[in-house]
Amino acid sequence: MINQDSIVALATPSGAGAIAVIRVSGEDAIAIGAKVFRSVKGKDLEKQKSHTLHLGHIVDGPKILDEVLFSIFKGPNSYTGENTVEISCHGSTFIQQQIIQLLLRNGCRMANAGEFTLRAFLNGKLDLSQAEAVADLISSDNEASHQIAMQQMRGGFSNEIAQLRSELLNFASLIELELDFAEEDVEFADRTQFHELLNRIEFVLKRLIDSFAVGNVIKNGIPVAIVGEPNVGKSTLLNALLNEERAIVSEIAGTTRDTIEDELVIGGIGFRFIDTAGIRETEDVVESIGIKKTFEKIAQAQVVVYLIDNGQLIMDNGRISEIKIEIEKIKNQFPLKPLIIIGNKVDKLETAQIENLKSEIPDILLISAKQKIGVEDLKTTLLSFVNTGALRNNETIVTNTRHYDSLLKALEEIRKVKFGLESNLSSDLMAIDIKEALYHFGMITGQVTNDELLGNIFANFCIGK
Amino acid sequence: MINQDSIVALATPSGAGAIAVIRVSGEDAIAIGAKVFRSVKGKDLEKQKSHTLHLGHIVDGPKILDEVLFSIFKGPNSYTGENTVEISCHGSTFIQQQIIQLLLRNGCRMANAGEFTLRAFLNGKLDLSQAEAVADLISSDNEASHQIAMQQMRGGFSNEIAQLRSELLNFASLIELELDFAEEDVEFADRTQFHELLNRIEFVLKRLIDSFAVGNVIKNGIPVAIVGEPNVGKSTLLNALLNEERAIVSEIAGTTRDTIEDELVIGGIGFRFIDTAGIRETEDVVESIGIKKTFEKIAQAQVVVYLIDNGQLIMDNGRISEIKIEIEKIKNQFPLKPLIIIGNKVDKLETAQIENLKSEIPDILLISAKQKIGVEDLKTTLLSFVNTGALRNNETIVTNTRHYDSLLKALEEIRKVKFGLESNLSSDLMAIDIKEALYHFGMITGQVTNDELLGNIFANFCIGK
Repeated sequence: MINQDSIVALATPSGAGAIAVIRVSGEDAIAIGAKVFRSVKGKDLEKQKSHTLHLGHIVDGPKILDEVLFSIFKGPNSYTGENTVEISCHGSTFIQQQIIQLLLRNGCRMANAGEFTLRAFLNGKLDLSQAEAVADLISSDNEASHQIAMQQMRGGFSNEIAQLRSELLNFASLIELELDFAEEDVEFADRTQFHELLNRIEFVLKRLIDSFAVGNVIKNGIPVAIVGEPNVGKSTLLNALLNEERAIVSEIAGTTRDTIEDELVIGGIGFRFIDTAGIRETEDVVESIGIKKTFEKIAQAQVVVYLIDNGQLIMDNGRISEIKIEIEKIKNQFPLKPLIIIGNKVDKLETAQIENLKSEIPDILLISAKQKIGVEDLKTTLLSFVNTGALRNNETIVTNTRHYDSLLKALEEIRKVKFGLESNLSSDLMAIDIKEALYHFGMITGQVTNDELLGNIFANFCIGK
Repeated sequence: MINQDSIVALATPSGAGAIAVIRVSGEDAIAIGAKVFRSVKGKDLEKQKSHTLHLGHIVDGPKILDEVLFSIFKGPNSYTGENTVEISCHGSTFIQQQIIQLLLRNGCRMANAGEFTLRAFLNGKLDLSQAEAVADLISSDNEASHQIAMQQMRGGFSNEIAQLRSELLNFASLIELELDFAEEDVEFADRTQFHELLNRIEFVLKRLIDSFAVGNVIKNGIPVAIVGEPNVGKSTLLNALLNEERAIVSEIAGTTRDTIEDELVIGGIGFRFIDTAGIRETEDVVESIGIKKTFEKIAQAQVVVYLIDNGQLIMDNGRISEIKIEIEKIKNQFPLKPLIIIGNKVDKLETAQIENLKSEIPDILLISAKQKIGVEDLKTTLLSFVNTGALRNNETIVTNTRHYDSLLKALEEIRKVKFGLESNLSSDLMAIDIKEALYHFGMITGQVTNDELLGNIFANFCIGK
């Protein structure tokens, strides 16, 4: 074990609750715990088995601080791999602080953010990508991101990477061996098998890299831009989707000058709705800025919702052709972006008018944001744009930007090796590229690390984990 | 056991943290837990010993929700006295909700506020005053209130009450027996011993009732009114004591129109400082209201701090005698209230002026709130007014208004019984008063309860305790 000192932290959220859990890990965790704990049954804590619970009091000399439950985990059978105790105390902030201070006086030090998980990694209980999944798991707030984090924590793609890395390492050592016998011109590494392995690695890397697009939207939510002319009901639609009064709604055209974002989980997938200022060209300087933002937001969004006011269409016969031109403009500028055209305020239309509208714009979705007609259809349509197939089929999905970068770099090196192999590059040059690829694989699983990398990763954790 | 159904609740504070603890209690708690838990070692949870911890996954059919630690407590050796499991899961709100919903689908129901502790009481694990101490313990935010709650939870005065009640009950049954043999004119109950017992009970009740005054200030903080003429630096003093910019400070006399309260813990005792408008009589209607409040606050306060501006005294020679008259007024109106006279802005005085001031007002405490001179002396003086002797000597202190009321009523009945005994009242009449006294004793420890009483007590608990 690298760390010999014992660390302590509150593991449960701060604030008052029924109970709180204080965690201590390190060589002396049980011994330190025993110094401040008095079992109601007079048990000697240091003689108790791992994975047992004991009722007693936390004592500071003659003073009783609290009645607690004391859990014992003996290394390596603990989260960190070290001796660990967990004290389940009453939930007042005062008691929590008193017990932590007592433990500090008895030889613990305060844990840094993520230090328990860092120790678990350093003691070989988790690989690096699993450790990172712990933080994702704690911050997951919807079905999909939770599922991905769980999968990654249970091994996920790092097992696959570790397996491929070990096969590649095997070839690398054979090629290194060839270098030692360079004058004899022998080939220890079977070039056909090697080529087959490189193809396999390339295939896996490409699949994982492609999954990042899905992983990223699932982790961060899918950005949806809601656009349209002023006063067609964008904010009302947003409110209908969010089921709350988030955006400011008014009767004055152009109320929404700044972009507003809000999140909604549909079918386990997070969507970020971006309400924007209207599209219409204008003399108003403030509104012009809003319109510029609209086009920026369309560029950033993954799905665009274009909103039309049906009521306006009835009053002004020329509007339909104008709108059709505007839709074409968006389609031309963003040809690959899914576009949903919505006719709002459908409650104001006669049946004949609806028929006419549908013949002019066949793919229009008619809704009433105010009356909440068709809002569920919109949700279903939005969900259909997300590639949730991979998620449903339990495929591996990469969500972590650090992993994505390493995978990209590894793929680049693997392609170099493959090119070298195909063009009969000398073994010593090929060996350099293989080492580079191995390095990037190792960065994902943590076989290659440095203090800065670990520092960056674990600094994002909360204290107590 | 009275409750057969299994209840579930989050026991740790809501919000995200490293871990969260979900608690299930009831006949089927372990069986329900076993339905959603899959041990990593393939253990059958229902066959595991009490007070053991198990690593595994919470599963919803084929779906894994989280990796958790599962604690087993078998009734009666648990907090509630029933079978209990505690699930220590990852701390995301999403995971917490998913696991609780899964448990609800598997036969639990949501626990009401305080229901775990209510069950502990109903199953005889705690008496009622101990159960109430659990809530006090969770909400304790300073040394003194924490210590009192701990003492009460460990038995405190309810053991003493229960003992006296049982002795009284013994005499009561002997007196009832006398009634059965009324025609034979026998005396089963030794009148001398009975009188001695009543004296002992009276003594204990009086001591406990007297402790309530101390208990109440410790639990709720000691109210200290800071008064004085406008612009003498009351708000600055409050800020110096609180070490933060709590009150509005300005150079305009009479800035503090409304009373402001803030808390400060000195030597483990909570003080509530009440800043008030100046005392001077005034034509300003708004300020008059403030001055009326000042006298109200003095009446409510336990300690009064009277503040003088030393600088003003130098400029106006007649002021000292005016102030001495005002101090006399306060002393006359509140003769028993501790009064601390403070000369502020001592940094503006020459040595000779200080000597003169001390000869005019011998008990003056000279400070500078702005320069933070003498503020610590003030804190020490404040602490000296608190009767912490009882606290230091580990004496029993009553803090609960409900207990105080029952103790008062019990004392009243005991005095009736004693008067009856001394005036040779007939046994049947005396028996009625004894029953009344027994009733009030039972109300404290919970031997006498009703649903309304229990409802009132446990509704103040947090959910999950």
